[in-house]
Amino acid sequence: MSELRKDLISGRWVIIATERSKRPDDFRPPAPVAAAAEAAGFCPFCEGNEAKTPPEVFALRAAGTAPDSPGWTVRVVPNKFPALTPGPPPPRASQGVFQSMEGRGVHEVIIENPVHGLDLADLPVAHIRDVLRVFQMRIRAIEGQLHYQYVQVFKNKGKEAGASLSHPHSQIVATPIVPKRVKEEIYGADRLFRTFKECAFCRILREEEALGARIIARTGHFTALAPYASRFPFEMTVLPRRHSAFFVEAREDELEALAAILKDVLTRLKVTVGDPPFNMVLHQAPNQWLSARHWPELAERSHWHIEIIPILTKVAGFEWGTGFYINPVPPETGAQFLRQA
Amino acid sequence: MSELRKDLISGRWVIIATERSKRPDDFRPPAPVAAAAEAAGFCPFCEGNEAKTPPEVFALRAAGTAPDSPGWTVRVVPNKFPALTPGPPPPRASQGVFQSMEGRGVHEVIIENPVHGLDLADLPVAHIRDVLRVFQMRIRAIEGQLHYQYVQVFKNKGKEAGASLSHPHSQIVATPIVPKRVKEEIYGADRLFRTFKECAFCRILREEEALGARIIARTGHFTALAPYASRFPFEMTVLPRRHSAFFVEAREDELEALAAILKDVLTRLKVTVGDPPFNMVLHQAPNQWLSARHWPELAERSHWHIEIIPILTKVAGFEWGTGFYINPVPPETGAQFLRQA
Repeated sequence: MSELRKDLISGRWVIIATERSKRPDDFRPPAPVAAAAEAAGFCPFCEGNEAKTPPEVFALRAAGTAPDSPGWTVRVVPNKFPALTPGPPPPRASQGVFQSMEGRGVHEVIIENPVHGLDLADLPVAHIRDVLRVFQMRIRAIEGQLHYQYVQVFKNKGKEAGASLSHPHSQIVATPIVPKRVKEEIYGADRLFRTFKECAFCRILREEEALGARIIARTGHFTALAPYASRFPFEMTVLPRRHSAFFVEAREDELEALAAILKDVLTRLKVTVGDPPFNMVLHQAPNQWLSARHWPELAERSHWHIEIIPILTKVAGFEWGTGFYINPVPPETGAQFLRQA
Repeated sequence: MSELRKDLISGRWVIIATERSKRPDDFRPPAPVAAAAEAAGFCPFCEGNEAKTPPEVFALRAAGTAPDSPGWTVRVVPNKFPALTPGPPPPRASQGVFQSMEGRGVHEVIIENPVHGLDLADLPVAHIRDVLRVFQMRIRAIEGQLHYQYVQVFKNKGKEAGASLSHPHSQIVATPIVPKRVKEEIYGADRLFRTFKECAFCRILREEEALGARIIARTGHFTALAPYASRFPFEMTVLPRRHSAFFVEAREDELEALAAILKDVLTRLKVTVGDPPFNMVLHQAPNQWLSARHWPELAERSHWHIEIIPILTKVAGFEWGTGFYINPVPPETGAQFLRQA
């Protein structure tokens, strides 16, 4: 099992793989085994190779087809090399000033479609909506266990974005503590709520829609924009126009609309900068069944959204030292190119 | 001039290049002009090419040699494409909820030696000490102008670490505000000082030295260790054993000792994982001439140090969403390999 460790000064937690850890030679060329196998044409996520993944947790599949066999459209499996292992969160341990916890949590892979070469943006809107529906179902199921404070849904596309397999997939990692970045967002939103007497994200949405320069796409339910203080070229945020802290509260018509705007903006990104690697990250409030106890009121003042970060620049020494970012493309310029695409 | 913009929710500032901004095609292959010129064998940082950089700000050079001519050992020039432009910090501007400042600051390049192929780790200890001395001189000169709250010194080695030129160099960026990451470290150290009744870094040093498992190298003046909650494989921190918040207060014998331990650990890193790209980041307290006004007491409770981050893994969706990191090499294992190298 891995170990969660807390950095004393910053309060940041890290997950340390203690059992199946890598050796120095693993970081030298040639590429590791998985990449070599994939280069040779084998992919454990392709239809027909279901036996090569751990048994499925859930799948949308044709009536009459058996689990772990062909016939599925979206398939969820435990990560074969999980960062965290299921189980109730153990107490914190400490040795002197050093604090740790057993690495308890959930780590699942959502295989978005059976065909290796079909990106999320290439799928029909109804299929993307199904992927989003599966996200909701898994979040509900994991939160219902009451072990995990936060469920992080994300997608890494491309090697440069951290994907070890190229078959389109997303991941879910549930953690026994509310992550630092999530706390910052909740506390920030709460502080601003007290100033504005309304949700800060709702306020930003209204001002951005009035200005227009950073809007990339807009529908009845969603707005996609280049955030004012974008860290990266062509960074995008997709926000529901209806205030809600919890992604699982998105209704069926909203999921359909989200699928449509995601397909739209991901296609615009492809056309504009040539199919770059990217990270897609769901931001939402902590586990709502636990938040009633641990996060009274606060969570309700945040506003779920999706961040899309194209990997076109490098995070370097200046960013590590300061937490600042240097962005060579003003978001207004990026938004204009994306709108015109 | 660039623009500093504040993210409303997180309080994070970004630097947006508004004038010389990139277009989408700049992110597609083939590589940009600078890389192409370098591939063809030209380097503006090599001895003899002094006319290809902006006029030097400072250099350690042989007696009788003229500025911007050969004969130097360490040379400081303004960055040709600066993220920030010198000048007194202007007031904050705002449009609705969106806050900005003109991009005032300093951006310099320290060319560490005249020979293209000599890495920092390859230089004699006395030469590395000279590079560190030049860091001190530039920090003192920039802080003395009283315009900039923080001076960030860092080094990006290798393309994957964000270096656009391969000739060994470091950079200095001075900002008109104290960066988020620096504030976090100061507030964290202050909070712990009140608990421990001593500097948290001094406490960590004592506990790490007693345990030994994460120590990589140790001399009379400095300890190099793999931090307990390392984010990255083979991450290293070099800490002065004497408490001090300000790098400029390091004495001549300490600079010599720092040069020696940096050469030692960077060479160990090379031997262990095959000359990986890395970021090296100086952490220190804000401008001490301004901190007396803005950071009374607090700054003195932090402890300057150097972080070395090898680029062997990718920052991906999980990290962006949570601020957590997944590290496949326990620091104890990493330290053992580095000690044995």
